[in-house]
Amino acid sequence: MKLLEDRIRKDGLVRDTDVLKVDSFLNHQLDVSLLNSIGEEFYRIYKDEGITKIVTVEASGIAIASLTGIHFNVPVVFAKKAKSKNIEGDVYTSKVHSFTYGRDYDVTISKKFLSEKDRVLLIDDFLANGKAMRGLLDICEQAGASVAGIGICIEKEFQGGGDELRSQGYHLTSLARITKMTENEIEFSERE
Amino acid sequence: MKLLEDRIRKDGLVRDTDVLKVDSFLNHQLDVSLLNSIGEEFYRIYKDEGITKIVTVEASGIAIASLTGIHFNVPVVFAKKAKSKNIEGDVYTSKVHSFTYGRDYDVTISKKFLSEKDRVLLIDDFLANGKAMRGLLDICEQAGASVAGIGICIEKEFQGGGDELRSQGYHLTSLARITKMTENEIEFSERE
Repeated sequence: MKLLEDRIRKDGLVRDTDVLKVDSFLNHQLDVSLLNSIGEEFYRIYKDEGITKIVTVEASGIAIASLTGIHFNVPVVFAKKAKSKNIEGDVYTSKVHSFTYGRDYDVTISKKFLSEKDRVLLIDDFLANGKAMRGLLDICEQAGASVAGIGICIEKEFQGGGDELRSQGYHLTSLARITKMTENEIEFSERE
Repeated sequence: MKLLEDRIRKDGLVRDTDVLKVDSFLNHQLDVSLLNSIGEEFYRIYKDEGITKIVTVEASGIAIASLTGIHFNVPVVFAKKAKSKNIEGDVYTSKVHSFTYGRDYDVTISKKFLSEKDRVLLIDDFLANGKAMRGLLDICEQAGASVAGIGICIEKEFQGGGDELRSQGYHLTSLARITKMTENEIEFSERE
């Protein structure tokens, strides 16, 4: 998606060769107009897939999933990272290793909100080694929900998570695929 | 807002006399169509206030703020609750006591995204004793940003935070104001 690639080139900051900061428009300050265009693009790609639910993980997936859900007109469910006393009863849980925070955490979704009747579009801001996405896939499997597709804003292709998911047959769409990055230059895969 | 009150009556669950669970449509599973109507309503009320930025706190404020921001066409900034190595440099920080989690936490916003040029609309899902909102107000004060208004989905009026903010002169709009709740009945203030 040219709009997103251009924005990454303009406002993205590379740190330590593998960290890309896009906090001015994607995951701290949010350019909701850009996010709405991203949601439209996911809708264009997955609109005929019979999606019944959009699933993401807090916190940075929520805005993107919400502005995607509005086009599909289906509910959005976000997995929680901390167990709150407001989540009661039965939950699906999966353990995830966070690259960003350098530690493990659980992601949980209340069993009420995901079932074998659901056909899910998974959404997230980043895909690197794929650990967070594995947690969501694990939860979908526990629920018996079918995964129609995975929509990612920025894939760091050189970290391998995306290719692994594609080789396992998942329909994965990354709107910007970074093959290489340095402080001075960001290279993208050719767009499909 | 009748639409929201009706939904709370239909799907809200009261626990322990002061906890209202609305996780089926507002803060775990999200009815994005309802949230979009909420955003439209905040826009109707605050559209002439010269809002430059919408500010909320992760996680449950993000979807509502995003679907409000899309109507104002201004950036959304969400305060983070945990310090990540992806937040670098200068941040505004304020300490908040969480009623839900029963502990203190810091909320932080990168200084890049809030300044004395901003006129802010603060958004959150709940207002109870007002502690989370105090954290956001504190950050706006540190930044020198002016607060044009506070938009809340559900105010638990009987916990006092809203009246305190109103008495201090804040323009506070709560779309559903609960005066009393039991497991069998939820009472709302008369709508303005």
